[in-house]
Amino acid sequence: MTSTTRQLHLNAFVMSNGHHEAAWRHPDVQPSDALTLQHYVRIAQTAERGKLDSIFFADGVALPKNVAFNGHSAFEPLTLLAAIAAVTEHVGLIATASTTYNEPYHLARKFASLDHLSGGRAGWNIVTSAGQDEARNFNLDKRPDHSLRYERASEFLDVATALWDSWADDAVIADQASGVYADSEAISPIDHQGKHFQVRGPLNIRRPVQGYPLLVQAGSSESGKEFAARTAEAVFTAQQTLKEGQGFYRDLKSRLTTYGRSPDDLLVLPGISPIIGRTEAEAKEREAQLNGLINPAYGLAQLSSMLDTDLTHAALDEPLPDVGNATEGNQSRFDLVVGLARRESLTLRQLIERLAGGRGHRVIAGTPTQIADSIEEWFTEGAADGFNIMPPTLPGGLDDFVDLVVPELQRRELFRTEYTGRTLREHYGLPRPADRNSSNDKETAA
Amino acid sequence: MTSTTRQLHLNAFVMSNGHHEAAWRHPDVQPSDALTLQHYVRIAQTAERGKLDSIFFADGVALPKNVAFNGHSAFEPLTLLAAIAAVTEHVGLIATASTTYNEPYHLARKFASLDHLSGGRAGWNIVTSAGQDEARNFNLDKRPDHSLRYERASEFLDVATALWDSWADDAVIADQASGVYADSEAISPIDHQGKHFQVRGPLNIRRPVQGYPLLVQAGSSESGKEFAARTAEAVFTAQQTLKEGQGFYRDLKSRLTTYGRSPDDLLVLPGISPIIGRTEAEAKEREAQLNGLINPAYGLAQLSSMLDTDLTHAALDEPLPDVGNATEGNQSRFDLVVGLARRESLTLRQLIERLAGGRGHRVIAGTPTQIADSIEEWFTEGAADGFNIMPPTLPGGLDDFVDLVVPELQRRELFRTEYTGRTLREHYGLPRPADRNSSNDKETAA
Ligand SMILES: Cc1cc2nc3c(=O)[nH]c(=O)nc-3n(C[C@H](O)[C@H](O)[C@H](O)COP(=O)(O)O)c2cc1C
Ligand SMILES: Cc1cc2nc3c(=O)[nH]c(=O)nc-3n(C[C@H](O)[C@H](O)[C@H](O)COP(=O)(O)O)c2cc1C
Repeated sequence: MTSTTRQLHLNAFVMSNGHHEAAWRHPDVQPSDALTLQHYVRIAQTAERGKLDSIFFADGVALPKNVAFNGHSAFEPLTLLAAIAAVTEHVGLIATASTTYNEPYHLARKFASLDHLSGGRAGWNIVTSAGQDEARNFNLDKRPDHSLRYERASEFLDVATALWDSWADDAVIADQASGVYADSEAISPIDHQGKHFQVRGPLNIRRPVQGYPLLVQAGSSESGKEFAARTAEAVFTAQQTLKEGQGFYRDLKSRLTTYGRSPDDLLVLPGISPIIGRTEAEAKEREAQLNGLINPAYGLAQLSSMLDTDLTHAALDEPLPDVGNATEGNQSRFDLVVGLARRESLTLRQLIERLAGGRGHRVIAGTPTQIADSIEEWFTEGAADGFNIMPPTLPGGLDDFVDLVVPELQRRELFRTEYTGRTLREHYGLPRPADRNSSNDKETAA
Repeated sequence: MTSTTRQLHLNAFVMSNGHHEAAWRHPDVQPSDALTLQHYVRIAQTAERGKLDSIFFADGVALPKNVAFNGHSAFEPLTLLAAIAAVTEHVGLIATASTTYNEPYHLARKFASLDHLSGGRAGWNIVTSAGQDEARNFNLDKRPDHSLRYERASEFLDVATALWDSWADDAVIADQASGVYADSEAISPIDHQGKHFQVRGPLNIRRPVQGYPLLVQAGSSESGKEFAARTAEAVFTAQQTLKEGQGFYRDLKSRLTTYGRSPDDLLVLPGISPIIGRTEAEAKEREAQLNGLINPAYGLAQLSSMLDTDLTHAALDEPLPDVGNATEGNQSRFDLVVGLARRESLTLRQLIERLAGGRGHRVIAGTPTQIADSIEEWFTEGAADGFNIMPPTLPGGLDDFVDLVVPELQRRELFRTEYTGRTLREHYGLPRPADRNSSNDKETAA
């Protein structure tokens, strides 16, 4: 690629049979696929064929409510991505893991393992776990307060990065003749003594190929955005309109200087669920077909959990009733859903349909050209550095995106035609963090 | 296989460049291999070529002492085995994980994920983590007491098995037409309220292919053996002589009736490190070559940690000095090492050589026939149901075992010539645990 045009980044957000709530009922879909490794391998290989930067798995540590009505992703993401690492070569592998219900030693080690196994392709979507049900699987009655969760997340990252740095890049010598395996001066305890964690270290695996895995975040509250501005290198976000997207983009980028970072150090990736047709009519028909498979009882149950309000008996063809105010656990999703319902005066049924596509993420039904136009607009108008692609059905929805939309983006010189880097950080154009424990530093200090 | 002879079970215990302490310095070995996925994939595929029951990775959650002198296994075992699952078909995959420093919800889920990803090939070596350094990576000053660790292990297993059973085998319906994805009656919270854990459940992944992963254990203390007798289906153990092996075997099998189990419900697998030569002289020469690569300073440092006594300045050509008594953390290893030194009146240098091969496991240097003879003797004389094969070097030592010893065991009709089962439990001839939450039980209860 000789073009010097600023390049888009594309991440495939992979979820069971697809992101549309009724995906598993669509005739193109085989529901049992979502429980097999082969399904995810095929999807990862499709992403790789499309030269996408990465694939991504969301995660929670409790069974989602309403599983009676809806397929769910069965596998723990780090385990699944390790399997996928063995049968892919280029695509980045981003796993979600919670700082609220994990220990930094375990997670730092698992991400370092995945990064080495994959030759430098690991990414971590750092979440603080907003669910109540998650707390109840980990010895608690209710989730810790929002501020406490972010406080813990912040200390968790301090520990994890110190553990990754506990081996200098050049610590392993492995000189068979002299019998010196490692430079013990280059491997140091971290002796972390904090409020949430006391961790001695060092880690029992050397520094990751990428230094650290790519650090991704998706919080939208004040604390979430500050946390992202301090630590994250990519942010997933749900934005419905260009204007909202531009506002979020500006907001987030403006926070970086406080932490001595530049706007390019953090990439903003809004979600988009593309329903693709050869003609616009075909796309709309496809969308209607999916919406026709929605189970309204499930929609009401989902809305009830999103808004922490019992709507299971609400009238479907009336507007959203008064649902009070957001709680500390659901602020951003609450504002997004209530905002959408009020702004467009939607009935509950319409609201359910609007959310079914992407749970609050933007759904766009159109031709490959229309979808590429919208991507280009957000990208050039200051709302996005790339996109979190959420195929409505899987694997078909990603095939369509890779076969029809990616070539159009390549024609416009917005997207790579070959991988030019080897690691996930290289795909995203992000630097490898320097080694704060290197022998060089030591010499300077000594 | 038409033979009805009782069949041996063979597990490959995989460790970095091999089990001999100086393996990484051997000219056949490439030290950097141990840090690559390809190395372990090659080994797993060799085990599969040899029709072995399983491969196994040990684990600890702290950096081993003395890494300056010795290569170590870098990868977290569940992550590594998931990658291996994607490129193997038959061989069982046994990962070590600690009940002392993990949460049951996470581990139950990860093992269920590995079991589904691999089509029913997951096994769990349950350990209680005897190291002091491990505690210091998890907010503690020192390891919890031995009895407390086993008490937690026992409750941990109760929670994990309840979580695996929280989905009935037939809970997923996935009927596209009616829109019913799962039978919500067949997925139940576990509402565990215990001393160490409060876990609501249900698990967020359906019941494992094998019901539960194969449950393996390796404790040798009284509590360790009782725990194994109650919960384990295979036991790894270090036994130096046939007589000791027979004593351990009898002891363990006799404990099973107390728990309503039969002697066949638990398999005993002693460790053996085979140093293989075409002639006995060649094998002995190979052993001497490996021992010649030992770094005595490393040996002294290792002995010091095994015995919790500083021996780093002890004289190498004198007998083992007085080392006091075992502490609660090192009982079985202590007895084994001190017993060996006293029984055979070894100097420290000789003791170091004896331990370098298998850290207390039996090392046997001989021809394929001699090794097969010893395996057959232990197997038929009531000391073993199979073996934990610990190749001195990797991958070469496993190639030799598979190419030279396995065919000899097959000729004697002691070992399978083809896989006859699909799952790890089937390889070991162990039953799939019944589903205590099945719809049938419910009907009876209603
Ligand atoms: C695209 C996207 C993916 C997300 N994935 C997860 C996830 O996998 N697990 C999770 O617990 N939260 C996930 N979240 C939620 C956020 O991490 C965060 O908890 C939520 O936006 C609330 O933010 P706040 O706590 O800063 O208010 C995701 C959010 C977005 C926009
Ligand atoms: C073959 C074998 C493998 C073992 N692997 C591990 C391991 O991976 N991690 C670990 O912490 N302990 C391991 N152990 C140690 C035992 O789990 C146990 O902690 C030790 O034998 C002390 O037993 P006790 O606590 O019952 O006295 C292993 C022991 C044997 C014999």
